[in-house]
Amino acid sequence: MPLPLGRPPGGARRERRVQDSLRNPGIITGFPEIIQALPEADASFRGITLRLLQGPTASLIFVEAHEASEVPEHSHGAQWGVVVSGELVLTIGGKTRTYRPGEDYLIPAGVPHSAKLKAGVRVIDFFDDPNRYRPKKR
Amino acid sequence: MPLPLGRPPGGARRERRVQDSLRNPGIITGFPEIIQALPEADASFRGITLRLLQGPTASLIFVEAHEASEVPEHSHGAQWGVVVSGELVLTIGGKTRTYRPGEDYLIPAGVPHSAKLKAGVRVIDFFDDPNRYRPKKR
Repeated sequence: MPLPLGRPPGGARRERRVQDSLRNPGIITGFPEIIQALPEADASFRGITLRLLQGPTASLIFVEAHEASEVPEHSHGAQWGVVVSGELVLTIGGKTRTYRPGEDYLIPAGVPHSAKLKAGVRVIDFFDDPNRYRPKKR
Repeated sequence: MPLPLGRPPGGARRERRVQDSLRNPGIITGFPEIIQALPEADASFRGITLRLLQGPTASLIFVEAHEASEVPEHSHGAQWGVVVSGELVLTIGGKTRTYRPGEDYLIPAGVPHSAKLKAGVRVIDFFDDPNRYRPKKR
């Protein structure tokens, strides 16, 4: 039985990051605190954290997969993204490719796409829609 | 003498991108149109274009160097960034390193830093300050 641990400063979020780094030593898990401080957006998918920067005409999310995750096919307005760490498998309009750090992609408006996120992947996604995501209700 | 070219649709910005790609064939110069549509921010430095996403508590710029450029040493609140294409030479607190696509960096608040941007470099910079940059006056 694991020993009960005291709750470290910073609460559940920091505790999860500590646990992540114990499971995956050497892997940087997570964006820095200044990004963690952004409002969290509603992610319909388990194991993904989204941090939201909402501008007046556009928005951007910092995506982090704490465990392997899949986003089923969907479509919406235009999206541009870039991989910061790890690997992202994207299927855009029926074509599948693996994207690695520094590789960017453009998903034109209305084109169906799906994604497989490996554990530890960090991605930045930009949308030409300020309300593509909403801040989570607290 | 080069033949005079008709002005392509999209105006001066598109024309410059076309000229860039003629000079540097095979190099993707520029963020996509959905990012080019963001307001341009004031850049004190020649040859750099900044596109601004301003949120309520933080902001982000898409940086693109059309020619080699240098940003002299300065400091401000905390900044995180990632290279999307090309090479960025950063000196943070006296330590110099070259950053390539997918490599990210954290500049703590108040730490002096300077940058050398090679022509064609694209970078995303995030600030925990919504007003680190202002939209250009038109």
